[in-house]
Amino acid sequence: MDKVLKAITPKSEDFSQWYTDVVRKADLMDYAPVKGFIVIRPYAYRIWEFIQKYLDARFQATGHENAYFPLLIPETLLTREAEHVEGFSPEVAWVTVGGGEALSERLAIRPTSETIVGEMYSRWIHSYRDLPVLINQWSNVVRWEKATRPFLRTTEFLWQEGHTVHRTKAEALSETEQQLEAYRGLLHDLLAIPAVTGIKSAGERFAGAVQTYTLEALMGDGRALQAATSHFLGQNFAKAFNIQFLDEDGVLKHGWTTSWGASTRLLGGLIMVHGDDRGLRLPPLVAPIQVVIVPIAKGGSGEPVNAYCQKLKERLAPHVRVVFDARDEFTPGYKFNDWEMRGVPLRLEVGPRDLAAGQVTAARRDIGAKIALADGELEVTVPQLLEDIQKSLYEQASAKLRAESVPIHDYHEAMEHDRRGFFYGDWCGEQVCADRLQEETSMTIRCLPLGEEPEDSGCVICQGPSRHRAVFARAY
Amino acid sequence: MDKVLKAITPKSEDFSQWYTDVVRKADLMDYAPVKGFIVIRPYAYRIWEFIQKYLDARFQATGHENAYFPLLIPETLLTREAEHVEGFSPEVAWVTVGGGEALSERLAIRPTSETIVGEMYSRWIHSYRDLPVLINQWSNVVRWEKATRPFLRTTEFLWQEGHTVHRTKAEALSETEQQLEAYRGLLHDLLAIPAVTGIKSAGERFAGAVQTYTLEALMGDGRALQAATSHFLGQNFAKAFNIQFLDEDGVLKHGWTTSWGASTRLLGGLIMVHGDDRGLRLPPLVAPIQVVIVPIAKGGSGEPVNAYCQKLKERLAPHVRVVFDARDEFTPGYKFNDWEMRGVPLRLEVGPRDLAAGQVTAARRDIGAKIALADGELEVTVPQLLEDIQKSLYEQASAKLRAESVPIHDYHEAMEHDRRGFFYGDWCGEQVCADRLQEETSMTIRCLPLGEEPEDSGCVICQGPSRHRAVFARAY
Repeated sequence: MDKVLKAITPKSEDFSQWYTDVVRKADLMDYAPVKGFIVIRPYAYRIWEFIQKYLDARFQATGHENAYFPLLIPETLLTREAEHVEGFSPEVAWVTVGGGEALSERLAIRPTSETIVGEMYSRWIHSYRDLPVLINQWSNVVRWEKATRPFLRTTEFLWQEGHTVHRTKAEALSETEQQLEAYRGLLHDLLAIPAVTGIKSAGERFAGAVQTYTLEALMGDGRALQAATSHFLGQNFAKAFNIQFLDEDGVLKHGWTTSWGASTRLLGGLIMVHGDDRGLRLPPLVAPIQVVIVPIAKGGSGEPVNAYCQKLKERLAPHVRVVFDARDEFTPGYKFNDWEMRGVPLRLEVGPRDLAAGQVTAARRDIGAKIALADGELEVTVPQLLEDIQKSLYEQASAKLRAESVPIHDYHEAMEHDRRGFFYGDWCGEQVCADRLQEETSMTIRCLPLGEEPEDSGCVICQGPSRHRAVFARAY
Repeated sequence: MDKVLKAITPKSEDFSQWYTDVVRKADLMDYAPVKGFIVIRPYAYRIWEFIQKYLDARFQATGHENAYFPLLIPETLLTREAEHVEGFSPEVAWVTVGGGEALSERLAIRPTSETIVGEMYSRWIHSYRDLPVLINQWSNVVRWEKATRPFLRTTEFLWQEGHTVHRTKAEALSETEQQLEAYRGLLHDLLAIPAVTGIKSAGERFAGAVQTYTLEALMGDGRALQAATSHFLGQNFAKAFNIQFLDEDGVLKHGWTTSWGASTRLLGGLIMVHGDDRGLRLPPLVAPIQVVIVPIAKGGSGEPVNAYCQKLKERLAPHVRVVFDARDEFTPGYKFNDWEMRGVPLRLEVGPRDLAAGQVTAARRDIGAKIALADGELEVTVPQLLEDIQKSLYEQASAKLRAESVPIHDYHEAMEHDRRGFFYGDWCGEQVCADRLQEETSMTIRCLPLGEEPEDSGCVICQGPSRHRAVFARAY
């Protein structure tokens, strides 16, 4: 067995170690000198850029603009909204010294920007003509986490955070839902990740929000990942920050605000949904390298094979992101393992026999199958294959989500499934039940799924009256 | 006079106040709650995005990749390179508390990332096969400045910082020059800003660099702005951070490193180079709005004029970034002033007489001239006019740079020009002369311009032997 492959713990054996191996060996990240911080290496950052491009296009198409708000927030500002500060202050990193002097007031590195944005909006908004305000920012935030994992939960992470103000409650709700749909599109169209959309229970809601919409995705080990959230903030922040406008009827009113975000945690989700024992499997649309050409040649056959590969790379380059692996120092077998670990969706192998037959051998990363492709049509068949792979990865993930979505009537049933999967059951709506569930099983209420009604078969925890349909799972 | 226009102090009267007025009234920025910090509002951020796009394309075309390194740097790491820490430590903001607890070691918010990048590179680089490493990052940095001005000098700013490692000195020098050329391209091609390229004197060099290349641009008030810099770091950081590789000859060697950056300060330069008494003048390539259509109609003529304007907007939208200002509540005069202040390069006025004549009246922001354009060819003539305006702004700035580039033999001659402009003269190379000049005139050595030799007419300060040709100026 090859040394590259050996370096990865099989996913089936130890999922957590597999994940740690993959993110490092595939050059996605490295640990920074400060605990909990990571370096996002180029291969992973490129995927993040595809995500940025997709979201920017959707945000812009619906009238949003990008801006940039400051990194540091005065303590007095951060503490203005009561629930918000309670939720975030334990996780804050504080700047206390600047330019060689102790600061008169501590400054928080933003854990999120509702407060600083709220302060600015209160200055900019005066009339109903100033509304809606639809602003997004791409930024870094810091939350001092106790337990961290690369991408999934890091002390600093990158994200986008949208902050909007609307004239009416209905408009703000519609914005919240529109942005949830943008995230669902991102997961579905680009990342090939199916997800359950729902509303967070009060206990899991964003600090200061009236309603938090969420997308919950199922990871390879049967745990949930909150992939993105969209918050309807009601008038909580508008009141705390005096965001008021003179309406057309001459009455001074508070605005209705929303916020919504998606972060580099999505990179962790991408790895954990699609990866297998051989490493990453990247959906073609976000693969920095979509196709790798590997020559299979010994001695005298090297020259014509390499010449063909070089030419093939040039032919394919206008259509796909392609690399020709011409490295002399590695065997084809080593290269196969190396590129498989990095999740390249399609490998084209070219040997003397392929040359003679006027074909290349294509190996699909999604299903491992090899097929012969005629040389003449590669500019067409290769992009088609990539489309197939994109769909196939989504379908594989969907099938898994369906298989691991289990209706229950009593939470003990989840134990029979080793707590792997999304457990659908009724909930009485009491936090005490949610707490008990978490204490006993480590499972939480991931969301109250949209479009689902309780079965009225009783709360899966206390057997009391059903109030909501809920998805229970262990989560990252 | 209109209230918008009145709100701007004339540039000729008080340049500093004019600048402050423009950046606020044109909605480019607002002051944040913490002194020295600003909010970059959407109109300015859009310009920054055009800059990002241009640079990213150039960086990528020369093999660079984007990545992300952490915001926080441990104190021990920041202090590893002696000159570097001396230069930056007075400006550092320190995080001392995280997650409710005092940290065992203070963490610096990055003032620049050579140290953290150096630490990571030392782990990643082992063999000559790993070189070159060509990485760029888009990020925020914090430098605790005493005197701040919007965009030009802010405590936090956005920038890109490139960090590369090379096998040889020659390669690293060539990289440094290549990136300087990328910045020159940005200024010339996109921002319509002419600049002098040169080398920094030792006193003005980046802390830790062997050589700093700079682009110096001339602002509207005759002062210089350092627009971007590219540093050849020799082996200073490679030695401080143990960036070593086994070369092909089996010898362990230190790498040669470079770093280079351009920041949101460029937005300040853009404003100060092109702005006039009426406000901003934006080069079309970076104008968020390139064309504004303003209807001139009273009473009954409104309907056909507005219908025409709406249709015109739709015709032009595939070709240029166009807005139809249909606001009822403002007069055409108000709108003219408003869009002029925001620097929109081209205004199309449409009145009943224009309609009857099958034309629109185009007003150029760069020269204030109005010309009639035939309706039938607008899809062609409007983009052509924008190209002309782009060139014209560059030529105006170039003419000013030429006019205010003054050869001197004694630094007192600069006083006759009220110290406005770039003064070219010989310099003996002694820091004591540079210090005396700065003390007496506030002028500094901006650079030793590339391709220029000393005249051998003696140092303009001490009249001692000429060693360098230098550009002297007051600077932002």
